[in-house]
Amino acid sequence: MAANRLDGTACAAAIKSELAPRVSAFVSQHRRAPSLHILLVGDDPASHVYVRNKERAGIETGLQVTVRRMNADSSREQVLGMVHQLNDDPTCDGILVQAPLPASLGRAATQDVFDAISPVKDVDGFHPLNVGLLVQGRATLMPCTPSGVIELLERSKIAIAGTRSVVIGRSEIVGKPMALMLLQRDSTVTICHSRTKDLAGIARDADILVSAIGRPGFVTPDMVKPGATVVDVGISPTADRQLVVSLFGVASERMVGFDKKGTTVVGDVHPGVWSVAGAMTPVPGGVGPLTIALLLKNTLAAAESRAAR
Amino acid sequence: MAANRLDGTACAAAIKSELAPRVSAFVSQHRRAPSLHILLVGDDPASHVYVRNKERAGIETGLQVTVRRMNADSSREQVLGMVHQLNDDPTCDGILVQAPLPASLGRAATQDVFDAISPVKDVDGFHPLNVGLLVQGRATLMPCTPSGVIELLERSKIAIAGTRSVVIGRSEIVGKPMALMLLQRDSTVTICHSRTKDLAGIARDADILVSAIGRPGFVTPDMVKPGATVVDVGISPTADRQLVVSLFGVASERMVGFDKKGTTVVGDVHPGVWSVAGAMTPVPGGVGPLTIALLLKNTLAAAESRAAR
Repeated sequence: MAANRLDGTACAAAIKSELAPRVSAFVSQHRRAPSLHILLVGDDPASHVYVRNKERAGIETGLQVTVRRMNADSSREQVLGMVHQLNDDPTCDGILVQAPLPASLGRAATQDVFDAISPVKDVDGFHPLNVGLLVQGRATLMPCTPSGVIELLERSKIAIAGTRSVVIGRSEIVGKPMALMLLQRDSTVTICHSRTKDLAGIARDADILVSAIGRPGFVTPDMVKPGATVVDVGISPTADRQLVVSLFGVASERMVGFDKKGTTVVGDVHPGVWSVAGAMTPVPGGVGPLTIALLLKNTLAAAESRAAR
Repeated sequence: MAANRLDGTACAAAIKSELAPRVSAFVSQHRRAPSLHILLVGDDPASHVYVRNKERAGIETGLQVTVRRMNADSSREQVLGMVHQLNDDPTCDGILVQAPLPASLGRAATQDVFDAISPVKDVDGFHPLNVGLLVQGRATLMPCTPSGVIELLERSKIAIAGTRSVVIGRSEIVGKPMALMLLQRDSTVTICHSRTKDLAGIARDADILVSAIGRPGFVTPDMVKPGATVVDVGISPTADRQLVVSLFGVASERMVGFDKKGTTVVGDVHPGVWSVAGAMTPVPGGVGPLTIALLLKNTLAAAESRAAR
């Protein structure tokens, strides 16, 4: 028996189509589209791909998306200056600084840049004020990936209240906000991490298991309670044929694709879990598309919320 | 075999004595004592007792403590005006608005008042910005009660990293920040609440069990793993003789005290847990004294931090 496939692509499409009438209403009331400004500093190739995908999805949804490119050797003051300019721009609704910033800026300056984003335009939901409001159950802008997971669970009619859930990973971007959102919805949440002992045993207690550590195939079938809902947030691109064979088998469809392109993306969850779980997100096509959909939803929410003030 | 008694009174005294040289250094450098302003609105008798205790402890530690009393019928604008005045006062280091505010103010106004406190003077650590910084592991001002629990555990040489901990209760004041602080110290944390199923079974997995729900005797011996550390944050005053008999036994010392005064305070943890746990906080004399000590520590930290900017 194979787990029910939680289709993130379809869910993301549904969310985006629900945004359309709200975008139209905003346009007719304010004579401009809700606007997202993406700040892209440097030449990281993956960042360029992510930004292009966000730009395309935003435009498809009727948002105005502006990508501001800055050189890799931009100074802290230059990047901060751009953020302040966007903060002050009344026609800018959402600001996204694409991570990672160039390593040459240093950690402190990187933190300063993210902290400088006005909380009301913080469509990534990373500003500490928005994180605190999330803890207190009254945030408007919340991190996109865990918000997307909640949308997927709720639209798939998977009950959260009264369940036990286990989140593997405690990042600021996924693990911690994910745990807080599940708690907010009355799940009993355990957060696991690199220092956790008997992680397999703890994971097996979960009705909802979310893995967000970026270790291919980490969650094996023995770690999953039969019938549990398994959400795979880990998305690791790989060119390691041996790894892909070990996960999917040498005669799998995935190998056909891999041998054609030379790369594929793999999740934290071992494909063998499909025969144990009750419902599960695929990789690709699971959580990935939802992250962008929620970014668009946050941009619209930021625009509506600023307009209502 | 009885659990090791985690003496909150002694720990609070140690913290306060460590503050003394820092207070002296601040005074000699800035020609004034670090100052705490407590805003007390209305006539709640318990609040008056709490405020008096905070005032006394602050003065003993060399802080300047000013209690600002306002009538129970003060308007939202009046209370906000006082908070703004204190925010703008350069000689005010810490602002504490004693909860609860009069019910007549309403929930929204109460939230507005707490949100209005400048984050750099927020010695309760309740401002969403400080809560977000706590999540991100970079807060200066954190809620006093869970901070006190951490101090008690660390000074008692109870290992946190690598343990499993269970927090019963998910309040903004104790449960959630407690869970975040234990997570920050590499414990694997589960947060339980009213919607949790098999709470007893989950509690039994805990190496560190923290109860903060205010239900006398809720944590019974069968819910505790032998040798676990049990922290009792629940402090319920009671005049219910039957309850006290059921918890402590009719021939207990506690009954002697109760029959003299007609009241006592009881914790969330059943006294029978003393024979199962490895270490445990008493009530009274456990977490209670630590909360005030940490308030003083926060006030000094706020003063030092503002002075250093």
